[in-house]
Amino acid sequence: MQQPIAVLDSGVGGLTVVKEMMRQLPREKVIYFGDTARTPYGPRPSREVLHFTREIVDYLLQFRPKMIVIACNTATAVALEDIRSRVNVPVIGVINPGARAAIKRTKTGVIGVIGTQGTINSGAYEHALKELSPHVHVISEACPAFVPLVERGNFRSNETYETVLSSLGRLRKAPMDCLILGCTHYPFLSDTIAEVMGDHVELISSAEETARDISTILHDQRKLARGDQLPVHQFFCSGDPAIFKQITLQWLGEQIELTPVVWQVPQIG
Amino acid sequence: MQQPIAVLDSGVGGLTVVKEMMRQLPREKVIYFGDTARTPYGPRPSREVLHFTREIVDYLLQFRPKMIVIACNTATAVALEDIRSRVNVPVIGVINPGARAAIKRTKTGVIGVIGTQGTINSGAYEHALKELSPHVHVISEACPAFVPLVERGNFRSNETYETVLSSLGRLRKAPMDCLILGCTHYPFLSDTIAEVMGDHVELISSAEETARDISTILHDQRKLARGDQLPVHQFFCSGDPAIFKQITLQWLGEQIELTPVVWQVPQIG
Repeated sequence: MQQPIAVLDSGVGGLTVVKEMMRQLPREKVIYFGDTARTPYGPRPSREVLHFTREIVDYLLQFRPKMIVIACNTATAVALEDIRSRVNVPVIGVINPGARAAIKRTKTGVIGVIGTQGTINSGAYEHALKELSPHVHVISEACPAFVPLVERGNFRSNETYETVLSSLGRLRKAPMDCLILGCTHYPFLSDTIAEVMGDHVELISSAEETARDISTILHDQRKLARGDQLPVHQFFCSGDPAIFKQITLQWLGEQIELTPVVWQVPQIG
Repeated sequence: MQQPIAVLDSGVGGLTVVKEMMRQLPREKVIYFGDTARTPYGPRPSREVLHFTREIVDYLLQFRPKMIVIACNTATAVALEDIRSRVNVPVIGVINPGARAAIKRTKTGVIGVIGTQGTINSGAYEHALKELSPHVHVISEACPAFVPLVERGNFRSNETYETVLSSLGRLRKAPMDCLILGCTHYPFLSDTIAEVMGDHVELISSAEETARDISTILHDQRKLARGDQLPVHQFFCSGDPAIFKQITLQWLGEQIELTPVVWQVPQIG
C-alpha cells in the first residue's frame, strides 16, 4: 500500500503547502490535519504549541506516514527539532526550505523575512539563514495584519494594498533582493506584496519551497510514490467541518472530493 | 574532524557546482576530482563512463566524505543509481535537482532541456521529470556547439550569440516557461541564452539547484558543517595540473589556494 505524507497545520494556512505538493508531486497521497479548533498558534506560549504539535503527530502516526510535514511556521519554530527526535520518518518544516531558497537566490546577500509576530520573535528564519551562511544580512518584519486579510478572502482590494504598503514601509527601503513569505497564509497576498516591493525583489514562497524539499528528501530516501493511479487525499480538522470544507474546496479547487473528518482535540488544561 | 563533500566530474564543468556550494554552503569542505585526462565523457560508451565513475568514487572514499556529488550530467545519467547502491553515504547527481526546480517553476507545464548529445540521448531529464509529474511536456535539444565555446572562454561574442540563436531555434517556438541548462558548462553562457530565449523563459541552472539540494539532504541528515572556521578545499585532477589550476582559479576566484594533486588514472584496458 502507498504510504501517505502527513501534513499538519494550526488551521488552513498549510493548505498552500498541500496545493504545491499536489502540483509538484501529483502521485503523493496527503493526510492533512488542520487544528481549526485551536487556531491561531501564533499568540500561544511555546509550551502549548509544542504540546499541541506532539498530540497531532501522535494522532497522524496511525496512518503510517512516510514523512511528516509541519506546514505552520509557528509550530516549525517551536517543535521541529522535538518531533524529529521522536519519530523514525523524515520530518520537514516550512522554515528551512524558504531559507535555503533565499540563500540560493540572493546576490546582494540582504534577505527580507515577513511572518507572524510569533515567527519573527522566535528568530527562527535568521537562525536557519545564518546556520547556512554566516555572511547574509537578514531584515525581518512582523505583519500581524496580513492573516486577517487572507482569512476574510480579501486578497486584492484597496484596503489590502494600503495595509501591505504600510506594513512593508521599512523593508522597501532596504537593499534586499529577496523576501521570504514566512507564513503559509502570505502566498495569497503575493500579487500585492510583489507590487509593493517592486520587480527587483523576488518573493520566496515557503509553500513552493517546502514541496520542492519534500521531493528532494523522498528521492534521496527512494520513497517517491510510483504508478499511474491518482491518490485520494484525506483531510481532518478539529473544528467546524463545514467551514473547513468550504475553505479547502476554495483553495484546492473544486475537483477535490472532500469529507473532512473531525478529531476532537483534547481539552487544554 | 570535519567530513568533506566529494565532488567528481569528467573535467572542469563541475566547478560550477563547487562555486555554488561555496556560495550557498560556505562552511562545507569540498574535495573535487576532475577527470581531465579522460574528458569529455559525453561521446564515450555508457559502460566506460560507469567504469570511470566507479574508479573515481573508490579513489574519493579514502577521504571519508559525508556525501558524494556526481557533478557531470553524463555520469549522473549513467552511474547515479549504481553508485548509490555501492556506498553508504548520500549520493546526489545534477539531473534530479534541475528537474525538481523546473517542476516547481513551470506554470505552462512545458519544460525545455538542453544538454550534450549523450545527456539528451539518455532521456534522463525526461525520465526524472515524468517520475515526478506525469503531466509535464518536455522538449529537449542537444547543443553540441556550446561546450567548445565555454572551453575557449568565449562567453559573450557575436559568434556565441549566433551559435546559441541557431541551436535554440526550435525551442524558441515552443510555449515553454522554463529551460533546464542540463550541462554544467552552460551557466557560463546563461546571459546569451537568456537573451535568445526571452524574458518569459526562466533558466534553471543545475549547478545552483544541486547546491540547494545538497543543503536540503545534509540538513535532513543533520550533517551540516558547523563552526566559524572556513574550510580549505582540495582539488585533484587526472590530467595536466597547470591547465587545471589556471581554469579553477579563473572560475572560482583568485582567493582560492590551489595545489592540484594529480592522480594517475588507470589505463583504459
